[in-house]
Amino acid sequence: MKEVAIVGIGQTPVGELWDKSLRHLGYDAVRAAMQDAGIETADALYVGNMLAGQLSGQEHVATLIADFAGLRGIDAAKIEAACASGAAAMRAGVQAIASGMAETVIVAGVEKMTDTLPAETTAGLAMAADQDYEAAEGATFVALNAMIMRRYMHEFGVAKADFAPFPVISHENALGNPNAMFHMRLTPERYAKAAPIAPPINIMDSSPICDGAAAVVLMPYARARELGRAQRLVRVAASAASTDTLAVHDRRDPLWLDAAYISSHRAYTQAGITPNDIDFFELHDAFSIMAALSLEASGFAPRGKALELAASGALARDGRLPINTMGGLKARGHPVGATGVYQIVEAVLQLRGDAGANQLEHAHIAMTQNIGGSGATILTHILMGEA
Amino acid sequence: MKEVAIVGIGQTPVGELWDKSLRHLGYDAVRAAMQDAGIETADALYVGNMLAGQLSGQEHVATLIADFAGLRGIDAAKIEAACASGAAAMRAGVQAIASGMAETVIVAGVEKMTDTLPAETTAGLAMAADQDYEAAEGATFVALNAMIMRRYMHEFGVAKADFAPFPVISHENALGNPNAMFHMRLTPERYAKAAPIAPPINIMDSSPICDGAAAVVLMPYARARELGRAQRLVRVAASAASTDTLAVHDRRDPLWLDAAYISSHRAYTQAGITPNDIDFFELHDAFSIMAALSLEASGFAPRGKALELAASGALARDGRLPINTMGGLKARGHPVGATGVYQIVEAVLQLRGDAGANQLEHAHIAMTQNIGGSGATILTHILMGEA
Repeated sequence: MKEVAIVGIGQTPVGELWDKSLRHLGYDAVRAAMQDAGIETADALYVGNMLAGQLSGQEHVATLIADFAGLRGIDAAKIEAACASGAAAMRAGVQAIASGMAETVIVAGVEKMTDTLPAETTAGLAMAADQDYEAAEGATFVALNAMIMRRYMHEFGVAKADFAPFPVISHENALGNPNAMFHMRLTPERYAKAAPIAPPINIMDSSPICDGAAAVVLMPYARARELGRAQRLVRVAASAASTDTLAVHDRRDPLWLDAAYISSHRAYTQAGITPNDIDFFELHDAFSIMAALSLEASGFAPRGKALELAASGALARDGRLPINTMGGLKARGHPVGATGVYQIVEAVLQLRGDAGANQLEHAHIAMTQNIGGSGATILTHILMGEA
Repeated sequence: MKEVAIVGIGQTPVGELWDKSLRHLGYDAVRAAMQDAGIETADALYVGNMLAGQLSGQEHVATLIADFAGLRGIDAAKIEAACASGAAAMRAGVQAIASGMAETVIVAGVEKMTDTLPAETTAGLAMAADQDYEAAEGATFVALNAMIMRRYMHEFGVAKADFAPFPVISHENALGNPNAMFHMRLTPERYAKAAPIAPPINIMDSSPICDGAAAVVLMPYARARELGRAQRLVRVAASAASTDTLAVHDRRDPLWLDAAYISSHRAYTQAGITPNDIDFFELHDAFSIMAALSLEASGFAPRGKALELAASGALARDGRLPINTMGGLKARGHPVGATGVYQIVEAVLQLRGDAGANQLEHAHIAMTQNIGGSGATILTHILMGEA
């Protein structure tokens, strides 16, 4: 198996981008990544996207974006795994390079969610849940996460206020990210007073509906070293995926993300490291409760103890395990099929030493984790910077 | 790069399967392929599917089917490239095995098109076209193919009746395929009198709206040989993809499938063969005109001469280049995201010598070609049987 390097990154700002269609968002991210990598073409473009069919009436988006970005003739496919589509596209790209069947692959994530009515977008997102047994009963994603959060509070005897550090950290970190959707400091007091959405979830527990696109360029590591690049190389040390039931009620334990446990531990094995070796963790805080479950299943906190870890200050930029260093889903934004690629792009910025105001002091080994549905598809990537 | 073997196949009948939901169709094909391969689990499931979001309100289908088929915990993703989704999923599976990142991969294609009103299904299919510049103008896929066919007739001075061999052959071959949707002999006379859909296209030029699922199991070739299997092994000698514009009017030449030319010639190079070496060709006759364009761009007939090739009898089961030996899209049926996998399954049946009444005498090297949209994404696979 060939080792894989990330040699280019690109992203659009995240927000309500009414002046950009799906193909324009894709174009912007793909061309930015190509320019960063110094390439004129590629062998393949894999696009993470969930909602283009439902919200834009457009499938076949990978080929559409390939053509629009000047890449007519290359291999192209859309990869979909609900909100984990971006990381699933990344994994497809890694496999293409590792197989030797492609020498240069562009992986993009693109999502356009704000051109439709919020109710339509919410119904679209519910397609990530089990349509026959959850969505058909009227359960939206907020409702499903609210039930999980309430159960977590009951089971582990924690208060709603204890979740505050997650959105507070994400909003703090977004202040230094020019591409983040929100540039607004959040205090625990303001979190406590935020408008309820589906109690106990309030609006400050919830990542926003938004548009955005991100892209990376992959090459065999050996070839990237030969070419010699202006930017520091980043190596993909692990790419792992796992799945669980779509429906929360079918899950072995609604408070334990089996797919996060399996995919993170597969990733540790691939990379030959332990959780202690991770310098920072871009995790999937679609809702605050998911951040807690992700930390526990990935081995960073004992079961039921993620909020204590958060309260200790360990997850801030100057802590032992900084999370969501550029704002996470909550404050950078969560354009669903693009999120997994944004996580990779942001990790690369840190590993290169290009994270600007948000640059971490120790950023040599990064982990990213992207969650589809309420925990049904979870991908974990580990990236390593050059020493 | 590791060589890849196909060690298991499964399929459901194609038709209006109102008693089977999407997950049941996927289950049937996946479990049948697993049984054929003699495996109890796998590392990954990649599912080709185009319309589940639009027509069943369900995305995240790969994980859904993985769980329902007893494969909870494995890697899973949906791969979408319009009507070429099945072959795109196959290519993802081949890359996963070739990379060494997976040892056993299941590739499935699943589509459920008959639970919705025909107008809804037709609108769903139009998402394979350029939404902003074709579909929004009211162009359906039949209309786009009708314009291409009319232009072909004008340019090369052929009559509508000259297209008859394509559906006649497909219907003839479907008679011997128990899984085909139609078991009805078609004569040139009946073709001439068939009801018009979008002239010059009539109903006998058009593949049907239908449900179906097919699956294959992939392994490294060396490992499959070691294990020693009851069924004859089939090797994936080539997997190639290429793309073009979604919109027909943006195409360099509407009568030439650049993406078929590029992907087929990439495939010949990978396999180290020429078109003359191909024993039979499972091609994408979504409409009769596409069969003609596919044959020309893939090097089997000079430009404008595919109908002469068809008239010569070369494409029948006893001809020099049999096509669509189990009924093709026209008569086996075209459950869009599943079609590319059906083509692989049928080719494997021939290469194993298991094609029953339709068994070809010489079936050692097979080619399959799957087309997305009106020619925008085209994948070509070449499979070789054991000597």
